[in-house]
Amino acid sequence: MADIEAAANRLSGRAQRTPLLSFAELDRRLGTRAFIKPECLQVTGSFKFRGAYNKIKSAQEAGGKIPGVVAFSSGNHAQGVAAAAAQLGVPAIIVMPEDAPRIKIENTRALGAEVTLYDRYKEDREAIARAIGRDKGYIVVPPYDDPAIIAGQGTIGLEIAEDFAKLGLEPDVVLAPCSGGGLISGIATAIKTRYPAARVFACEPARFDDTARSLAAGKRLENEGNERSICDALLSKTPGEITFAINRTLLSGALTATDEEALAAVAFAARRMKLVVEPGGAIALAAALQGRAPKPAKNIVIVCSGGNIDDAMLRKALEGAS
Amino acid sequence: MADIEAAANRLSGRAQRTPLLSFAELDRRLGTRAFIKPECLQVTGSFKFRGAYNKIKSAQEAGGKIPGVVAFSSGNHAQGVAAAAAQLGVPAIIVMPEDAPRIKIENTRALGAEVTLYDRYKEDREAIARAIGRDKGYIVVPPYDDPAIIAGQGTIGLEIAEDFAKLGLEPDVVLAPCSGGGLISGIATAIKTRYPAARVFACEPARFDDTARSLAAGKRLENEGNERSICDALLSKTPGEITFAINRTLLSGALTATDEEALAAVAFAARRMKLVVEPGGAIALAAALQGRAPKPAKNIVIVCSGGNIDDAMLRKALEGAS
Repeated sequence: MADIEAAANRLSGRAQRTPLLSFAELDRRLGTRAFIKPECLQVTGSFKFRGAYNKIKSAQEAGGKIPGVVAFSSGNHAQGVAAAAAQLGVPAIIVMPEDAPRIKIENTRALGAEVTLYDRYKEDREAIARAIGRDKGYIVVPPYDDPAIIAGQGTIGLEIAEDFAKLGLEPDVVLAPCSGGGLISGIATAIKTRYPAARVFACEPARFDDTARSLAAGKRLENEGNERSICDALLSKTPGEITFAINRTLLSGALTATDEEALAAVAFAARRMKLVVEPGGAIALAAALQGRAPKPAKNIVIVCSGGNIDDAMLRKALEGAS
Repeated sequence: MADIEAAANRLSGRAQRTPLLSFAELDRRLGTRAFIKPECLQVTGSFKFRGAYNKIKSAQEAGGKIPGVVAFSSGNHAQGVAAAAAQLGVPAIIVMPEDAPRIKIENTRALGAEVTLYDRYKEDREAIARAIGRDKGYIVVPPYDDPAIIAGQGTIGLEIAEDFAKLGLEPDVVLAPCSGGGLISGIATAIKTRYPAARVFACEPARFDDTARSLAAGKRLENEGNERSICDALLSKTPGEITFAINRTLLSGALTATDEEALAAVAFAARRMKLVVEPGGAIALAAALQGRAPKPAKNIVIVCSGGNIDDAMLRKALEGAS
């Protein structure tokens, strides 16, 4: 928790302090009071800026001048690292899958980073990034399995806790998207520190439910290879070591939603909440809209983690039934 | 200003306290620091809830039990009045144009109000509403030309001023959409009270620039009849009497944008700001993106006043060049 509070100080004035929003139509649909944490409004359109900035800034504070940073990412972490590095005056190389949404690759380049593409189904992105780090003396900024990254994402949980304190309410259930587990482990740390009775759930795409199965098994399990999903931000194969050690202690469970349900949640967010959310960013909202949020819950918090969706995908979502 | 502060007290915990957002891509496009006030996130998807709630609640405070309220509206005011009346336990009848966006008519009914449709080009909506008010003893909630409505909308300016004070910054230029002038007159009152040097500009659709021409002429002028625009929220014929009396004193001028520019701003908001904004709600953003915001301005504030856009219109915006 002290690391999260230190991260919040570093991020103050750099990251967007996202609000806690409520929507009558969402309350009606869920039959309870719901609060949205819209990280799609964050710098670079997803929560990833928080962890990336905290990681690079912490390294500067600890060791002085940094020659550069390198990261591997499906897109949101790429943009987060690129923006954080640019703000902190550090060169960045990002290793991205060649089938990442075009908008994420373009935005990463626009933020001043050098992009190296790889084949998601054949090459090992982590090995490529580590080789670049070794050759150039760059610091690797991992997407989730790192204490500084987790602490940065945890500032979301801290803000939620602060906002609930101001409202004089307590969160009962907190839902957030989960891939490698950096976001949910950070949020769970902050929420469970401030509100020990709150229950925190990881939300995953169906067939990428490695955290759900790992929690049930008590050990880290992998997803089947070669599955595909429109939730491009949530495709990591297995929980992180550090994140899973936190999550197995703090999480109350995990929920899933299908691609179709995620797309319907994207449409709901645009129509009813006036927010552009990408499919992976809407996975917790999707699970909640499908009635899968655990009950009873008077106050449920849903993290919408990112909004970097291609135009065509958003148009497709808006063609669905309302 | 005292009326605005009283309105803020009434709205506390009822209206969404919308944040002041910044976006790197917007700053780059405008060549200055820009702040978005996203009233698309407000209850019912537009700023209109603020004025409506303040009007009905003030009437209750002044006169006790109210038999009902009646309003005429192109859509956003309709939803605002319907939601405010429902929250305050008062029946509502809304007179809406039959060509209003379907989503606005449906949402108004879903909020529990009775909807009466009329022909925007042949009938007089105000006369219809006043007749209903007379017959039933209902209070008319006008869309803009009323001190309580103006004070409610002015809470947006108060929140902007409060947020700037927290940031230790001063707003130089404030842009907001303008139709009858309730929003901009309320905002100008609050902003000019707290920051007398700030310059406030009304933004209108081309060919609906009655406020621009009225300010230039020093008297209230009308728009040509039978013009059409996709900015369905901004089609009133002439400035209000009360609003114009305020605006001619406090505004520094007015800007316009075309329908095409408004649609491009809708696309920019969705892609770069992750916000769903309707064409009329994006008219100030459109004017700014076209380089029409007056200079010099270190800190420019742009009010995005609503997000109630039909799916087809949003899809069309997303088909445009990025």
